[in-house]
Amino acid sequence: MQAIIASTSTVYGSSYLEYLLPELKTHFKNIDEVLFIPFARPGGISHDDYTAKASEGLEPCVESVIGLHKFEDMKEAISNAKAIFVGGGNTFLLVKQLHELGLMSVLKQSIESGAKYLGTSAGSNICGLTMQTTNDMPIVYPPSFETLGILNFNINPHYLDPDSSSTHKGETRETRIKEFQSLNSTIVVGLREGSWIKINNSENTLQGDLPAIIFEPGKQAYELSPNSHLKF
Amino acid sequence: MQAIIASTSTVYGSSYLEYLLPELKTHFKNIDEVLFIPFARPGGISHDDYTAKASEGLEPCVESVIGLHKFEDMKEAISNAKAIFVGGGNTFLLVKQLHELGLMSVLKQSIESGAKYLGTSAGSNICGLTMQTTNDMPIVYPPSFETLGILNFNINPHYLDPDSSSTHKGETRETRIKEFQSLNSTIVVGLREGSWIKINNSENTLQGDLPAIIFEPGKQAYELSPNSHLKF
Repeated sequence: MQAIIASTSTVYGSSYLEYLLPELKTHFKNIDEVLFIPFARPGGISHDDYTAKASEGLEPCVESVIGLHKFEDMKEAISNAKAIFVGGGNTFLLVKQLHELGLMSVLKQSIESGAKYLGTSAGSNICGLTMQTTNDMPIVYPPSFETLGILNFNINPHYLDPDSSSTHKGETRETRIKEFQSLNSTIVVGLREGSWIKINNSENTLQGDLPAIIFEPGKQAYELSPNSHLKF
Repeated sequence: MQAIIASTSTVYGSSYLEYLLPELKTHFKNIDEVLFIPFARPGGISHDDYTAKASEGLEPCVESVIGLHKFEDMKEAISNAKAIFVGGGNTFLLVKQLHELGLMSVLKQSIESGAKYLGTSAGSNICGLTMQTTNDMPIVYPPSFETLGILNFNINPHYLDPDSSSTHKGETRETRIKEFQSLNSTIVVGLREGSWIKINNSENTLQGDLPAIIFEPGKQAYELSPNSHLKF
């Protein structure tokens, strides 16, 4: 497997995908066409507009980006793709579409057979065992919370540290993740913005400038530095 | 109907339920016993411990607080209750339990027949048409997102204004609510911490010191001041 699983598509002060371009130029080397899955539709953007945005973002790396929604046989399109990008937006919407169109297992198979994967935000969330550590609102009802499971843990993208100066009484991200683990034994990796996981064959490493925070059930949360192996 | 639907159980710098006590003393006047529904289990707290906490918080107003989990026939307990408090925590967990135990419609009936209701956070979320504007993580899979519908709109509790100084690229609360409305035509009321909705017969008014923010599909979001009627 070859995958880039990024916390966010965009870091503060730079353009869409810009911070990932050096990595993506290597990742998508010799790739002419990327299949884009626009189902997460951030802010309700149309599939066409979102695909145009992805195309613009990837323009320095690949010649052509084509939206999955354009294919009559989506399963075939995924199976044939040499590279796949699943963009961010709403994870519930993305997961609902993938399940209802019967694409979740096809996508997993394609990645395991060598299609080069890029996921950002919701597109990274689905690489975990379930989508249950998403930050998104349940704007639609998916038939299941299960996801690809190309990682043997869950991702929390856009991870935010508790703000000790805050007067807000809503739960912190940490509290929410621990609440998840009071009922589920899945490990959760909090990926800060600007971080990504690189899967190179069976090796997962943390990339970017920031440490990740690791929640193992029953343990104190701890950090792992960039270039660490994520092996649990 | 007589209900208090609060954004949060606790405001910064005061104890559990403290800011609501003047209102609750009137609301629960002549009430000896409050039935507490502890299913949302914040932080994975046990039903017993959560009930003890609710009991302590309500101590200045009512003599006795009893947890729903203690009853063999929960439907009967809800139907017979003169006052019901549904505490906050995880909305997915709360809604799953209420549906799976067949209690959602019984609870609605009991409130409509005059049981005095108090909800905080998740317990307020369920007063809307659906739980789809919760801030919580989907830590369990409920059989449906439908909720009580004693309000004809949805609630977003712990509403947070966008922070224009933030460098974080995760979605703001406003963006998430608008994303919900790109697929659903439900009105959403963002209740800031310290605000509550008071239902007095068929009249809903906004209480507390802060304005609420109203999201109507296709309109610019706008604010309503304290004491405004919430009628859409």
